[in-house]
Amino acid sequence: MVTRLSNFFLRTLREDPAGAEVASHKLLIRAGYIRPQAAGIFAWLPLGLKVKAKIETVIREEMAAAGAQEVHFPALMPREAYAATGRWDEYGDLLFRLQDRKGGDYLLAPTHEEAFTLLVKDLYSSYKDLPLTIFQIQDKYRDEARPRAGLLRGREFTMKDAYSFDASDAGLDTSYMAQRDAYERIFQRLGLEYAIVQADAGAMGGSRSEEFLHPTPVGEDTFVRSEGGYAANVEAFTTAVPDAVAFDDAPEATIFDSPDTPTIETLVAHSNAVLDREVTAADTLKNVVLALRHLDGTRELVVVGIPGDREVDPKRAEVAFAPAEVETATPEDFEANPLLVKGYIGPWSPTGAVLGEESATGIRYLVDPRVSEGTSWITGANIDQKHAYSVIAGRDFEADGIVEIANVRDGDPAPDGSGPVSLARGMEIGHVFQLGRKYAEALGLKVLDENGKLVTVTMGSYGIGVTRILAIIAELNNDDKGLIWPASVAPFDVHVVAAGRDQIAFEVAEKAAADLEAAGLDVLYDDRPKVSPGVKFGDAELVGVPHVLVVGRGAADGQVELWDRRTGEREALSLDAALERLRG
Amino acid sequence: MVTRLSNFFLRTLREDPAGAEVASHKLLIRAGYIRPQAAGIFAWLPLGLKVKAKIETVIREEMAAAGAQEVHFPALMPREAYAATGRWDEYGDLLFRLQDRKGGDYLLAPTHEEAFTLLVKDLYSSYKDLPLTIFQIQDKYRDEARPRAGLLRGREFTMKDAYSFDASDAGLDTSYMAQRDAYERIFQRLGLEYAIVQADAGAMGGSRSEEFLHPTPVGEDTFVRSEGGYAANVEAFTTAVPDAVAFDDAPEATIFDSPDTPTIETLVAHSNAVLDREVTAADTLKNVVLALRHLDGTRELVVVGIPGDREVDPKRAEVAFAPAEVETATPEDFEANPLLVKGYIGPWSPTGAVLGEESATGIRYLVDPRVSEGTSWITGANIDQKHAYSVIAGRDFEADGIVEIANVRDGDPAPDGSGPVSLARGMEIGHVFQLGRKYAEALGLKVLDENGKLVTVTMGSYGIGVTRILAIIAELNNDDKGLIWPASVAPFDVHVVAAGRDQIAFEVAEKAAADLEAAGLDVLYDDRPKVSPGVKFGDAELVGVPHVLVVGRGAADGQVELWDRRTGEREALSLDAALERLRG
Repeated sequence: MVTRLSNFFLRTLREDPAGAEVASHKLLIRAGYIRPQAAGIFAWLPLGLKVKAKIETVIREEMAAAGAQEVHFPALMPREAYAATGRWDEYGDLLFRLQDRKGGDYLLAPTHEEAFTLLVKDLYSSYKDLPLTIFQIQDKYRDEARPRAGLLRGREFTMKDAYSFDASDAGLDTSYMAQRDAYERIFQRLGLEYAIVQADAGAMGGSRSEEFLHPTPVGEDTFVRSEGGYAANVEAFTTAVPDAVAFDDAPEATIFDSPDTPTIETLVAHSNAVLDREVTAADTLKNVVLALRHLDGTRELVVVGIPGDREVDPKRAEVAFAPAEVETATPEDFEANPLLVKGYIGPWSPTGAVLGEESATGIRYLVDPRVSEGTSWITGANIDQKHAYSVIAGRDFEADGIVEIANVRDGDPAPDGSGPVSLARGMEIGHVFQLGRKYAEALGLKVLDENGKLVTVTMGSYGIGVTRILAIIAELNNDDKGLIWPASVAPFDVHVVAAGRDQIAFEVAEKAAADLEAAGLDVLYDDRPKVSPGVKFGDAELVGVPHVLVVGRGAADGQVELWDRRTGEREALSLDAALERLRG
Repeated sequence: MVTRLSNFFLRTLREDPAGAEVASHKLLIRAGYIRPQAAGIFAWLPLGLKVKAKIETVIREEMAAAGAQEVHFPALMPREAYAATGRWDEYGDLLFRLQDRKGGDYLLAPTHEEAFTLLVKDLYSSYKDLPLTIFQIQDKYRDEARPRAGLLRGREFTMKDAYSFDASDAGLDTSYMAQRDAYERIFQRLGLEYAIVQADAGAMGGSRSEEFLHPTPVGEDTFVRSEGGYAANVEAFTTAVPDAVAFDDAPEATIFDSPDTPTIETLVAHSNAVLDREVTAADTLKNVVLALRHLDGTRELVVVGIPGDREVDPKRAEVAFAPAEVETATPEDFEANPLLVKGYIGPWSPTGAVLGEESATGIRYLVDPRVSEGTSWITGANIDQKHAYSVIAGRDFEADGIVEIANVRDGDPAPDGSGPVSLARGMEIGHVFQLGRKYAEALGLKVLDENGKLVTVTMGSYGIGVTRILAIIAELNNDDKGLIWPASVAPFDVHVVAAGRDQIAFEVAEKAAADLEAAGLDVLYDDRPKVSPGVKFGDAELVGVPHVLVVGRGAADGQVELWDRRTGEREALSLDAALERLRG
């Protein structure tokens, strides 16, 4: 049945909606795909629902091809399983929590690892039952602090989440690759260029984790890649650790006066003036004081030594210290720890092996991987107005650990030896993740193995944000006139416009729309009798169907125009030729 | 792709689940269609999801044919609109309420009248935009006090809710009929016999309301129907009011001693003894004291006079007094109102026109429609141990109003004159409802009419419980061995069983399954290598696919068995003949 604009539930808007900043947010509302209901919560109008359904169909087909079976969980879930894995608390304010009339605790699930784990535990008991991959396409909830960018970060969103269950690590690898391959096919079909990058396995405790990022300068994620094929989210990038350097012949560590040099810049200038060699920021060791807020509420100061030419990357720091939260050290922190001489902090250790003074402060001293054995540094002396040179790691100080919080730069060597990396920006469009046994252990999911012994199942988790993908496609496919859908997800195949007031134009357009629909195309027909051609054309461009067939003045002579929404090309041709072309 | 039981996510259970009482609840869990997650909340397994999808497809097709357009609202909705219509409070404990991190009030929508009203208000402004009917298929929430019977009354359920918008009453009638007709086609396609009965428009304030009931002795709803075509839910049944009777020549009301006659039974026996005529319970007027709990929390006593041969029907009373709740009068109520002489209460009035004593109690006196002008009654005298006869309505007392709380009986006349009614039981499978202007008024949905004047839009609301329908179909289609799906919603068309240990049986079954799938049928193939034929047959009967093709010992000779799950018929025939039959 041809969809007619005269009674289609659609009103396009001339003005950008208040508060919308990104193109997809503005255009999806203006073109009548979605309507806001509350911050980060949207209703879907017929146009939006059609695009969403097309994306879901692509996902379902590829999930089926990968052997994944569909199930469906409620959004409203009881607390118990989430408490058992700790996530009831860990999610913090992100979780919508509520109680039923009997006072029972419930949540609106932000993701369903627990529920899937328990479902398999409920029904399966033997290694012979595995492998199993099950998935759902379902509406999820997260109470984001700042829901923004429309569907890109909403509080309700539709997600395809799949979970694999295997009795062995090798099985998990196979299941993981099947989902990873399916994701490649899904993004190819959706016309979304992607890079697969290593991601941080982080607090989830998993062993392998990769993100599918769409490379785009407006992306919110930063990743690195080498020409040799290495690719990683910047949070997951690991620094190639230099070989140890012999320091038998190295000169002694020497303290020198360095008045008014609390910054790396002033230290470098002063060092170049007083030392008889050329010094750059990379020769200095910067010691940063951070405060960690642990899950149990306690607060811990740590000092981290990083090369002076690097900055702390907040996102890498967040991941490195998760689940603790990273806070800035306050003036009160320095007051409470007079041994921390601001601007002149040196390597630091709870065991007291510090420069300048023997002491035990209980503060952990961590270093960047580049601060490896035998490296020599100009650094603070833990004495006001004094620094030291020839301070050698492994000789003059030992760190309590290594931590990766320094920023990554173009030209840094990839950890796999595949050459220097370059930085790029991208949007996350999918995530595949080896959870390992964390959830199965917490919830007791075990099966009998070949020898009749109980073994804990190992799991994978695989997510695609359906509504997020839709927004990303809209974000990447638009111009100043409106949306430009790729054919694979367009709400309609053809937008037929009857332009002008000639009855013949309407008659020809009507027949053309019916012909195209009969040929299996999904047709939107602008049959509005009293709307000007200009308004109709504007609406067609805003709505963004790939092909626009304009039937106007030439209709009586069998002449029409065929517009390509993406290229903007407008070709005058005979109706028959146009129909032939559209039918493909 | 043929679905193979060897890796299909399905485990049938031998035992009925604890707490399940009705057949659909037991069987849908045992046969692996759903799994309970919390009271009244279920996860959907692959089998269940397939049946649900088939029901949804039927509904979507008929909605489209009726010109309804699909949209989708979130389950999580902000409080405001529901407060504007009063439903935030009226829903009471049935509503799941929660707050977001900023303390904003939200609810899990039990239904979306408000949201649809606001959406149309948002986008439409002229009568020319109407009529419009939009619908969604969406997961809803109600915190039922006693979730029970599995999906028949859950706390989460999938519903198709449609809403129509019209500028005129005539338009609403047309939109209403289009949905009503679509419902008839939907239930016909789903193989669900139905009766369309008048329903109570009740607190929703609407003008026309009909329920689709499936007639079944195990239904929870009672309805009445006459041979002349009248049909109504028992709550909506209205009593035919008798014509007024002249009472000019009637004898005076006379009080008589009636010791120890606090019940109708004792009063009738006593009256027959002391009065010189035959008296039945229908000649007496029973005055029932009820307590109404109003929305604002206040409690009001009322006295209702009904013929002595009738009982109060609690459901009719609930509807008659909604939104107030009906409670039983307590001994304290009688103590506090000494004029209410228990067992001897007569017609009663706040204006003081009572028998026995002049008084003003402030208690409303309501009567059944049969207590019409001129009718003569034997009733209480409002004096202990005394009744009165020849008490005539309209002469000796005036009621404050008419109320329908008396039970309906087989043989009662239909209010439309179509003859006596008979009672039957049924299950509600759909509801169509003229909401009128209640929501549009509360939320300010107006459009400009032909004359440029703002008019309030009139609405309809049309609901089908998708998951409830699924459960009802299961409830009506099963035997002691398991489920028996109608073909239109069966999860698969054919269940192929390879029985026994002969390799040839598996080879033939494999090929048969592939052939049937290639012919467009949806095939479940039990290829489990080490499962006994008995277990496979049991599973096939439990799962309930309409046709079972058994490939066993005769496979080598091209002989198979074709089972009809519904009739139980088992026919031995050649494989070719069986395939031919199945391909239809």
